[in-house]
Amino acid sequence: MDGLITAVIQDHMSGRVLMVGFMNEEAFRKTVETGYATFFSRSRNKLWLKGETSGHRLVVKDIATDFDRSALLIRVEAQGPGVCHEGYQSCFFRRLEDGAWQVSEERAYDPGSVYGSKP
Amino acid sequence: MDGLITAVIQDHMSGRVLMVGFMNEEAFRKTVETGYATFFSRSRNKLWLKGETSGHRLVVKDIATDFDRSALLIRVEAQGPGVCHEGYQSCFFRRLEDGAWQVSEERAYDPGSVYGSKP
Repeated sequence: MDGLITAVIQDHMSGRVLMVGFMNEEAFRKTVETGYATFFSRSRNKLWLKGETSGHRLVVKDIATDFDRSALLIRVEAQGPGVCHEGYQSCFFRRLEDGAWQVSEERAYDPGSVYGSKP
Repeated sequence: MDGLITAVIQDHMSGRVLMVGFMNEEAFRKTVETGYATFFSRSRNKLWLKGETSGHRLVVKDIATDFDRSALLIRVEAQGPGVCHEGYQSCFFRRLEDGAWQVSEERAYDPGSVYGSKP
């Protein structure tokens, strides 16, 4: 994957999986050094400090890796009500129900008031 | 990623993240149809029913996806003591401690007795 590793972000208290992102070596180093989860954005092709715009940063509590170091599991304290830029607590807000994806929870915040017109 | 989607596997009771795998469309369809997590193995370039050799299958309880459907979160009941072929309950058995990866838990089973000489 062009030097990118999958990073699973999990709330350290509730155990809820909040999002999946990608890191390159620099993003991983920044994450460890700063204590805030930093990803590599494939769409923008640059480093991305999660919460840069919204203030909803992810404070790293614990980092684990799997046997061949192809993925990271990062447990965090999420600052702010949600990590999803659509206003949900978790990016995984859609569940498969009877063969269709259904939104399975209420929004935790109003994305318009956080991101303005720039999502 | 060549039609592959990241699948995060989480224990539905404990909330522990057990592993990260990849699915193509066929693997996803099999997972939904059979109720057992089925991945696409990038190293073997074919479908892989988790637990085929060990019997440690993953019974699907719930499937969620993120906003752009780039990842799946699958909550499972894990049959058997562990998902990691090295004998651990979770593939994420190594933690970053003072800048080095350290094994952070005991083995849950003896991989030799499950897999024999074929890992």
